[in-house]
Amino acid sequence: MKPAQNEDALVARIARRLGFAKAKTLVVGLGDDAALWTPARGHQTVLTCDWFLEGSHFLRDKHPADAVGWKCLARAVSDVAAMGGKPRYFLLGLALPSRLTGKWLDEFLRGLKRAVRVLGCPAAGGDTTLHNKVLISITVIGEVWPGRAIRRSGAKPGDLIYVSGTLGEADLGLRQLRKQRGMARPSNAALRKHLYPEPRLALGQWLAGNRLATAMMDISDGLSTDLPRLCAASGVGARIEVDSLPVSLLLPTAEAREFAVHGGDDYELLFTVNARNARRLRATFHGVPLTCIGEIIGGKKILLRSRQKVEPLPSGGWDPFRF
Amino acid sequence: MKPAQNEDALVARIARRLGFAKAKTLVVGLGDDAALWTPARGHQTVLTCDWFLEGSHFLRDKHPADAVGWKCLARAVSDVAAMGGKPRYFLLGLALPSRLTGKWLDEFLRGLKRAVRVLGCPAAGGDTTLHNKVLISITVIGEVWPGRAIRRSGAKPGDLIYVSGTLGEADLGLRQLRKQRGMARPSNAALRKHLYPEPRLALGQWLAGNRLATAMMDISDGLSTDLPRLCAASGVGARIEVDSLPVSLLLPTAEAREFAVHGGDDYELLFTVNARNARRLRATFHGVPLTCIGEIIGGKKILLRSRQKVEPLPSGGWDPFRF
Repeated sequence: MKPAQNEDALVARIARRLGFAKAKTLVVGLGDDAALWTPARGHQTVLTCDWFLEGSHFLRDKHPADAVGWKCLARAVSDVAAMGGKPRYFLLGLALPSRLTGKWLDEFLRGLKRAVRVLGCPAAGGDTTLHNKVLISITVIGEVWPGRAIRRSGAKPGDLIYVSGTLGEADLGLRQLRKQRGMARPSNAALRKHLYPEPRLALGQWLAGNRLATAMMDISDGLSTDLPRLCAASGVGARIEVDSLPVSLLLPTAEAREFAVHGGDDYELLFTVNARNARRLRATFHGVPLTCIGEIIGGKKILLRSRQKVEPLPSGGWDPFRF
Repeated sequence: MKPAQNEDALVARIARRLGFAKAKTLVVGLGDDAALWTPARGHQTVLTCDWFLEGSHFLRDKHPADAVGWKCLARAVSDVAAMGGKPRYFLLGLALPSRLTGKWLDEFLRGLKRAVRVLGCPAAGGDTTLHNKVLISITVIGEVWPGRAIRRSGAKPGDLIYVSGTLGEADLGLRQLRKQRGMARPSNAALRKHLYPEPRLALGQWLAGNRLATAMMDISDGLSTDLPRLCAASGVGARIEVDSLPVSLLLPTAEAREFAVHGGDDYELLFTVNARNARRLRATFHGVPLTCIGEIIGGKKILLRSRQKVEPLPSGGWDPFRF
């Protein structure tokens, strides 16, 4: 499709492709000053926003436009999953060069539309403008039963620490992508996880609905960055059993531990469970492995225990401000 | 203050300065995956997002950082005002170079904090990252009584067209700022309106609460761009009386009409009123002039009538995609 000639035409094209109007409960979506709807009765509101910037979060010559579309929504929805919430709508803040408002935008919207369908989170509105690089800001609003949201701050000493899925695959995918020439093709599971991560919505809602998790967050910047955040919010420490980490068979054995500890972008859930409730968790939830990786302890220390030794967890996950 | 050394430190500083915790109804704000609160019973939810980008929407060598802080929230809140809603919380998406995380950020947060206080809209969360230019994405969530939100689509032929305040001042302020050397100082009313616009929250809520406006939007891109949007949404035309436009005495007489018709960034309300209800409007609302500038007509034409002639409204407002 040809590049858009003005802002209204661009907005109309995005609306057509994403199907704003199909959100039945939306009174007003695109084409007004703000989106408008009635919140579900008796629910609490969950609200989060997420940057996805060319050069920082994706590379335009490496990441297919449809993967950019999928991932920008998936990672924002993951924050709602991490509260145990159900996503309801999103706003698309999109800035891009006019030369990308044709084919690139079409592919981007194709990936985004698939995420809308799979994650059950239609667009309610947004804002578009011109910029020399692609800037994406996604806002997701969701709902949760009152008192059931799972915060980061509820972990207690003695709670068991769990993660969903496997850790480190997305980071391995990123390294493979960097080595490849040209546009990434999702040729293996690691690359697929890097390009098309799946937020653990059903798991998050199940843990919240059954009051099973005492604290929860999603692992976006790596276990070594995110676990300390959960522990700081809860005022506790943790001891991780290195040999328990759910490393993927795709990972090179020598580096598997490094990937699992520091790798970002997995969007798996990290949660804590009172030891009495642990037997209510199965080994998998709808096919997604649930693995106990350690225990919450008193104090502030975060330790990594292997057969040989116990050492402090080194930090090494992703932080844009770390120089 | 010194530049921030990592993302968590930066977020903590922003939280301290903006006082996230003071929002009493907020269950979780900053420091978790998403913000969480209970929506007011019986209200509808209003949600909007707005870009504010260095180079496109402000110039870092011309616009004082505190004005950037004020304006990014004020213009996003204006979209809630334009629905007749009450803002409740906002999310701050902020990307900036690390060298600006000291003094510039402090000044920015000072302006933003003033807007939080004046507009009654505290921060509920956000996302920060590094970028070589300052990127701001503001999401505002608000509430409105069910069925009372004023959309763009309700204007009917015969309705009178009103605007609040005066038109063109902010654009005049922008031109003055461009001519000045160095950082802008709010030395007159036009520059003040450009730097520190005031969203018409009380007026919007009064018009909605009393079911007085049939359609409403805020004038952000100029009357010549925004009136056609309101008319298109309502499926009507309009006839504007040039001599009725509320031009500011600050505007040079020869150009006053141009500024009033095309000038953007005023954030005044543009609304339509059934002729029978017009007498319920006074000449001012809490000191803000309310001016009838024309009438909604059938068809699709948007006309500009002066003593000499009737001509189609030329478009000329702000559109980032117009080349």
